Amino acid sequence: MATEKPSIPRGTRDFGPEKMNKRLFILDVIRQVFRNHGFQPIETPSIEQLSVLSGKYGEEGDQLMFKILNSGNFLDKVSIDGKDYKTLTPEIAEKALRYDLTVPFARYVAMNRHEIVFPFKRYQMQPVWRADRPQKGRYREFYQCDADVVGTNSLLSEMELMEMAHEVMQGLGVLNFTIKINNRKILSGIAETIGEKGKEALICTAIDKLDKIGKEGVEKELLEKGLASNSISKLSEILQSKSSNLLNISHLRECLMYSDVGLEGLSELEKVFQYLEINIPNHRLVFDPSLARGLSYYTGAIFEIKAEGVQIGSISGGGRYDNLTGLFGLPNVSGVGISFGIDRIFDVMEELSLFPENELFTTKVLLLAMDDSAINLVLNTAQKLREAGVQSEVYPEIGVKMKKQLSYADARKIPYALIVGSEEVESKLLTIKNLNTGEQQKLSLNDLLLQFA
Amino acid sequence: MATEKPSIPRGTRDFGPEKMNKRLFILDVIRQVFRNHGFQPIETPSIEQLSVLSGKYGEEGDQLMFKILNSGNFLDKVSIDGKDYKTLTPEIAEKALRYDLTVPFARYVAMNRHEIVFPFKRYQMQPVWRADRPQKGRYREFYQCDADVVGTNSLLSEMELMEMAHEVMQGLGVLNFTIKINNRKILSGIAETIGEKGKEALICTAIDKLDKIGKEGVEKELLEKGLASNSISKLSEILQSKSSNLLNISHLRECLMYSDVGLEGLSELEKVFQYLEINIPNHRLVFDPSLARGLSYYTGAIFEIKAEGVQIGSISGGGRYDNLTGLFGLPNVSGVGISFGIDRIFDVMEELSLFPENELFTTKVLLLAMDDSAINLVLNTAQKLREAGVQSEVYPEIGVKMKKQLSYADARKIPYALIVGSEEVESKLLTIKNLNTGEQQKLSLNDLLLQFA
Repeated sequence: MATEKPSIPRGTRDFGPEKMNKRLFILDVIRQVFRNHGFQPIETPSIEQLSVLSGKYGEEGDQLMFKILNSGNFLDKVSIDGKDYKTLTPEIAEKALRYDLTVPFARYVAMNRHEIVFPFKRYQMQPVWRADRPQKGRYREFYQCDADVVGTNSLLSEMELMEMAHEVMQGLGVLNFTIKINNRKILSGIAETIGEKGKEALICTAIDKLDKIGKEGVEKELLEKGLASNSISKLSEILQSKSSNLLNISHLRECLMYSDVGLEGLSELEKVFQYLEINIPNHRLVFDPSLARGLSYYTGAIFEIKAEGVQIGSISGGGRYDNLTGLFGLPNVSGVGISFGIDRIFDVMEELSLFPENELFTTKVLLLAMDDSAINLVLNTAQKLREAGVQSEVYPEIGVKMKKQLSYADARKIPYALIVGSEEVESKLLTIKNLNTGEQQKLSLNDLLLQFA
Repeated sequence: MATEKPSIPRGTRDFGPEKMNKRLFILDVIRQVFRNHGFQPIETPSIEQLSVLSGKYGEEGDQLMFKILNSGNFLDKVSIDGKDYKTLTPEIAEKALRYDLTVPFARYVAMNRHEIVFPFKRYQMQPVWRADRPQKGRYREFYQCDADVVGTNSLLSEMELMEMAHEVMQGLGVLNFTIKINNRKILSGIAETIGEKGKEALICTAIDKLDKIGKEGVEKELLEKGLASNSISKLSEILQSKSSNLLNISHLRECLMYSDVGLEGLSELEKVFQYLEINIPNHRLVFDPSLARGLSYYTGAIFEIKAEGVQIGSISGGGRYDNLTGLFGLPNVSGVGISFGIDRIFDVMEELSLFPENELFTTKVLLLAMDDSAINLVLNTAQKLREAGVQSEVYPEIGVKMKKQLSYADARKIPYALIVGSEEVESKLLTIKNLNTGEQQKLSLNDLLLQFA
């Protein structure tokens, strides 16, 4: 067979051991928090019917979905003549790769409504695929980690997600972070109050860009989109940020005093703060009435998390939605969810050097058999160390030059080498070398286990 | 938007909480064994270049690969006229879904040869996709869990994989199993000895069916494929199974005394037994000279694991290969690997009822807030329980009928309910109910923590 110079598709990545260990650390922390709070794991297929995904993510989403060519003779019974690629696609590709975890979850809930115990708390950690133009921090295959509660509109669920967000950040060691929270009902109340009722979507889209284009940019856009300049100045006044959550809430309560929906949103918000303060008095939740979040399916609370001290976008976000499963014939199931972005969390932790070197599951002891006579003792000792919980591996070749074995240990960042030759076999004392300090000790097996376990 | 009755593609599966918890249990056991032995995790993209995968799995593999339609206008610059689907495929679909973990691993090693520290011990646990006709136990998306050592031909690696296989089975609770082992060199020696040198592939293919079509069926096939009947009766004599590994080895040593390659295979086999007996004197390794395994890339040891007491095919298999990375321009890298099949392991464990009910990460305590006054105490207690390592969740709605909450606990198999109303708030004694026995107790928070943690 001819050899070839292989490559991987644009926007995809191989994860080598070092990156994988770090990613697994992040996934483990998140999974543990989800589990501790009674969230249940599910997985859905990577491949969905195109009809299930189509039309759920707007026109851009339909374009960016990876479609799978029908297997076998995909041209059979298909006439191509005169068709453009858009018409042809659903005829020759009836399946597509998962685009996010939310739509498959809604499909799952609708299909399994009779077996599911509601309220249903589920988590899901799987890759998704988007044919986006690859760029820094944007990939064509990436993991999402979602936790959702569906089948209740209790605000205890919002609170629990906030509590979990704190625990995840704590577990990761990202201690300096902010969770911005708002409520779509407050945004509706604002639209109503400034005399632009029904234009929430337009207003949200504009103020969502506040970070990027600044206050003036937003005002310019709103003017162009047809908002009265009087409305815009009222909006600007309402969004004037105060120095504390309490002040912000009472400022908004005053502004929105004639809007029922606005006041409802504020009560919901207050309740979440109240609940959260029971267990986390020093929480990092900040009410930001200008937080809008792009996705249109949110109907209540919305939130997002940013790490401080780095120039990296939000690492988590979510909110309450009232009718996602309605798309699949199951109306009136309210839910609230949070999603963690592994890639951004990875970048934050790298930039702030937050990965705990010693917890990254690397081998602690490398055992070296210097000759054939040593192999029994080496294999026995490795087993004893592993049974005592010390991750240990035997260098796979016998009698290789010490230098080669030690440079293997060095490259693998293994901190200790246990060197066994005929001398050690005779004396039954094992030579253990600290590869960072160069220090060497001779120990009996028992003393070794005592020292390491 | 119109509602629709959703479905999932044929041969794919949703995994609900119960199945997922069991699958995660299996994955965790395997991952822990891999880690303990110093194997390093990697992940490769789900999507590979079609050119990387094509021709690596035979014609059938090329057919069964899921191809991904090029994004954007895939008809641009492509002339369709007169082309059949086979010619058209590589022009409109330049990428495909991973078909196994071995070829992507070989590609990874070839591409990263300068960064990799050899010998390279890697593990990989990811889904693969095949457009096979779905049937019982055969799916279009399924996980593989592979561990490989590449860059050494030391037989310590074969031994370590066997040791790990024992530890995995132990960890899963599958205590009654057999690992059959053979060596391709022994099979070559057999072909040579019966006077059919070079016909190993043909002989392997036939005796691989021994379980299915019996001894006579195999002999018939060999006759049809052109083997001399004299050769076949010699073969039959050689493959006559003896009552122990030692007897089998000495029987084969006698039969193959004039075949260098055969004797080399036997020495290798003996060495693996010797090494394994150092740590696992009661191992379950059985030499089976008729074990052939279909895949043609094996060049040394081959092995497979079956659980006893169930009619389910092998749950794991593997072997040594000498030139996998050669496909991608990196020759002379010998490797040996083992692969665990999660779906079959799942079936075995279900059939033998081996899943440990209590270790499946379910919530232990459900906390019930019977009215608003109870919420502080409930949230506080839940946090304390979780901090003490007791997985606990608060029923997400306040003041719901006790019956509804308890039937939620029942459906979720949560063993304890902690019921808090105004009485409990006043007395500071918490009512804990064992939902299996119906027994109730009143405890202070401290006593509760002492009892559960």
